[in-house]
Amino acid sequence: MSLTLQLLRRRGPELMGSRSSTKLLKSRRQRWEVKPSEMANNTLNPIRAIVDGMKLTPNPDKPMIALSIGDPTVFGNLPTDGSVLQAMKDAIDSQKYNGYAPSVGYLKSRQAVANFCSCPEAPLEAEDVILTSGCSQAIDLAISVLCNPGDNILVPCPGFSLYKTLAVSMGIKVKLYNLLPEKSWEVDLQHMESLIDERTSCIIVTNPSNPCGSVFTKEHLQKILKVASRHCVPILADEIYSDMVFPGCSCPSMASLSSDVPILSCGGLAKRWLVPGWRMGWILIHDRNNVFGSEIRQGLVKLSQRILGACSIVQGALESILNNTPQSFYNKTISFLKSNSEICFNELSTIPGLNPIMPSGAMYLMVGIDLEHFPDFKNDVDFTERLVTEQSVFCLPASAFEYPNFFRIVVTVPEEMMLEACSRIREFCQRHYRPCSRDSNDLDQ
Amino acid sequence: MSLTLQLLRRRGPELMGSRSSTKLLKSRRQRWEVKPSEMANNTLNPIRAIVDGMKLTPNPDKPMIALSIGDPTVFGNLPTDGSVLQAMKDAIDSQKYNGYAPSVGYLKSRQAVANFCSCPEAPLEAEDVILTSGCSQAIDLAISVLCNPGDNILVPCPGFSLYKTLAVSMGIKVKLYNLLPEKSWEVDLQHMESLIDERTSCIIVTNPSNPCGSVFTKEHLQKILKVASRHCVPILADEIYSDMVFPGCSCPSMASLSSDVPILSCGGLAKRWLVPGWRMGWILIHDRNNVFGSEIRQGLVKLSQRILGACSIVQGALESILNNTPQSFYNKTISFLKSNSEICFNELSTIPGLNPIMPSGAMYLMVGIDLEHFPDFKNDVDFTERLVTEQSVFCLPASAFEYPNFFRIVVTVPEEMMLEACSRIREFCQRHYRPCSRDSNDLDQ
Repeated sequence: MSLTLQLLRRRGPELMGSRSSTKLLKSRRQRWEVKPSEMANNTLNPIRAIVDGMKLTPNPDKPMIALSIGDPTVFGNLPTDGSVLQAMKDAIDSQKYNGYAPSVGYLKSRQAVANFCSCPEAPLEAEDVILTSGCSQAIDLAISVLCNPGDNILVPCPGFSLYKTLAVSMGIKVKLYNLLPEKSWEVDLQHMESLIDERTSCIIVTNPSNPCGSVFTKEHLQKILKVASRHCVPILADEIYSDMVFPGCSCPSMASLSSDVPILSCGGLAKRWLVPGWRMGWILIHDRNNVFGSEIRQGLVKLSQRILGACSIVQGALESILNNTPQSFYNKTISFLKSNSEICFNELSTIPGLNPIMPSGAMYLMVGIDLEHFPDFKNDVDFTERLVTEQSVFCLPASAFEYPNFFRIVVTVPEEMMLEACSRIREFCQRHYRPCSRDSNDLDQ
Repeated sequence: MSLTLQLLRRRGPELMGSRSSTKLLKSRRQRWEVKPSEMANNTLNPIRAIVDGMKLTPNPDKPMIALSIGDPTVFGNLPTDGSVLQAMKDAIDSQKYNGYAPSVGYLKSRQAVANFCSCPEAPLEAEDVILTSGCSQAIDLAISVLCNPGDNILVPCPGFSLYKTLAVSMGIKVKLYNLLPEKSWEVDLQHMESLIDERTSCIIVTNPSNPCGSVFTKEHLQKILKVASRHCVPILADEIYSDMVFPGCSCPSMASLSSDVPILSCGGLAKRWLVPGWRMGWILIHDRNNVFGSEIRQGLVKLSQRILGACSIVQGALESILNNTPQSFYNKTISFLKSNSEICFNELSTIPGLNPIMPSGAMYLMVGIDLEHFPDFKNDVDFTERLVTEQSVFCLPASAFEYPNFFRIVVTVPEEMMLEACSRIREFCQRHYRPCSRDSNDLDQ
């Protein structure tokens, strides 16, 4: 007798009805069949999908130069400050930060972030700060608390791919609003507004921008806020590159310009302090008109309890990191990024067929490809793939940001490497450039 | 004219049909109404729900003793080993671990975990290890990859509340299988088996157990595996307290006993190395019969890319922590936990009305309350609340683990504190004990 039947008998007649027993017997799986969940299947990483599909075989005669990696630490030319490392070692030595922190972070560390990010127009208290495992978890929690499956979010195009990865995995739809390269990547406000419907649960604004390196003016940010205000849609401001703007350019936080729109601003140590691996992020809750109220705050607290947040040692070091990092460290980083951006922009500007767009901050530069002048290549993926094959220079095709016919350059590489890369890109373009597609076709015939 | 209408006009007649314009106009929200998502609302923490509802006002004449906190670091009597701290400082000084680690962790660190956790019966390679932000994220990823909304998982009762918190937030149902206090908290196998149906996507087994401190024998683990095997249901083994077992007791991993059942084993540094705040966890993929295949592995990799994992500094220190922590450190911890458990068990065993159950590992001890002898109290919540009011001793009511009429004691407090707590519990029980409920009622009349 099968064990299921034995169990049924033992449990008495009330379970022995034919319907119950059929159901229970049917329930017994006869063979192994374990499949990944829908969520796992729907967790898609467009960068990986595109890069994994590329044949990246560098030219053996030239050492590889990767301008593709959004990690400022890989070449060793941009170390974090000594005071940041010391803060970590002090936190370890104190032995005060080995236990569980509260799921939203130590109060003292939240207070330090509040003090650091506060401004008169958008004051913050410790309770407005939630510490997270990197800015990625901050974005995850912010989307998770605002959106239900079937809702949609507005996301910049080109834009950081994580928003879509997270949203789609949770059954949330993504609508891409256009950025305008001819306007230094400002938002196409009409397009943005046209996408809003009754299921739009937030607008994501990335400023400064990955992948564009653009920085919105105060006036432009105000226009974005007006759209959000007209339709009563909250904003998720991804401000991880906050304050990484070139001299002469200002970058007010969205919250400092908002009188009514509630904003969840996501940030962290990753980029400005050059320690992305440490996974220290935060959400700043800006809600001066009490739109979020206590409910969204409580929702964030609840969600933070699912896996808890940042490493307690980094939390313990946070106050010192924020307060004791010298201004000269930030200045040095910015100065390097600006200089390297200018080198790259100036070099690529003189290459027929390429249209680089000068950034104002962050650590990226986007380059348009006049594909009609490069008949050898179908698209940006093809173009960048061949750039590896022939010149051992790898730039990320902007298809990875849903923006074909561009590629993204990371400007954190050492200067000599940047110069060498630009020179190889020139050689590559000169070899493949045709004055115009008709001529090219004529030549082919 | 409203901007929506302007946009419609500008976009031409194809959008001007009455249906489209009505839809678009309707879509414009007239007022702010931002509500937390279903997921946020459904993220419930039963411990918080119960503790927040309790009136915890200690007796002002007695200093508070908290036997409730599952964090071994809070009293300072169980520091981590110096070699563990040194490994962290070395990782910081090397400056090699500031950048992004791969989403599943550094290969070298995964290899170190594989080496450390490998045994001849259940060998592991680096690719079988996924590093996570604490064991909580390991459990989150494991549930997320195996279960869809509408599925159910089998969870021990009493058991760690996080399983239910995570599952319910994702729309996954939880079925509780009973542990039997009279059999040292072994699983009621018939009950477990009776709960399995066609939507059961995994069985969670916690060994050693939180909150029971029990450790299953090899034979009992084999019986659990047989149930899983008969019904072709994979196992999520929460083995965070692995190797935290008292001398004379062995604790084989589930994977070392499984010939066919695929197992995701979750673990981490938190408890054995006494650094729960560092958020260093892992999933070990045991799949010798290739049931999970590449799909579940890829699913875990995809899910790991949502927020990335553990702090790179802790990852960088991991190899050294696993290889260089002296055996004497582990022994000292275990010896302390056993001694304190015995003190607590021996003291409470002699108190009429209490039924402590001696643990064999982990850092917990469960105590049954003969409520018929304590007519002053409705239930375990009432009992433990009054224990605070009168004696300033706080034990977690086991209702927080869905197991009423018990309370949980954490045995990591210093010995003198444990002795004092037991003495106060004795005084409390003596005051409220009635030989039997009938007598008590007689007295009341």
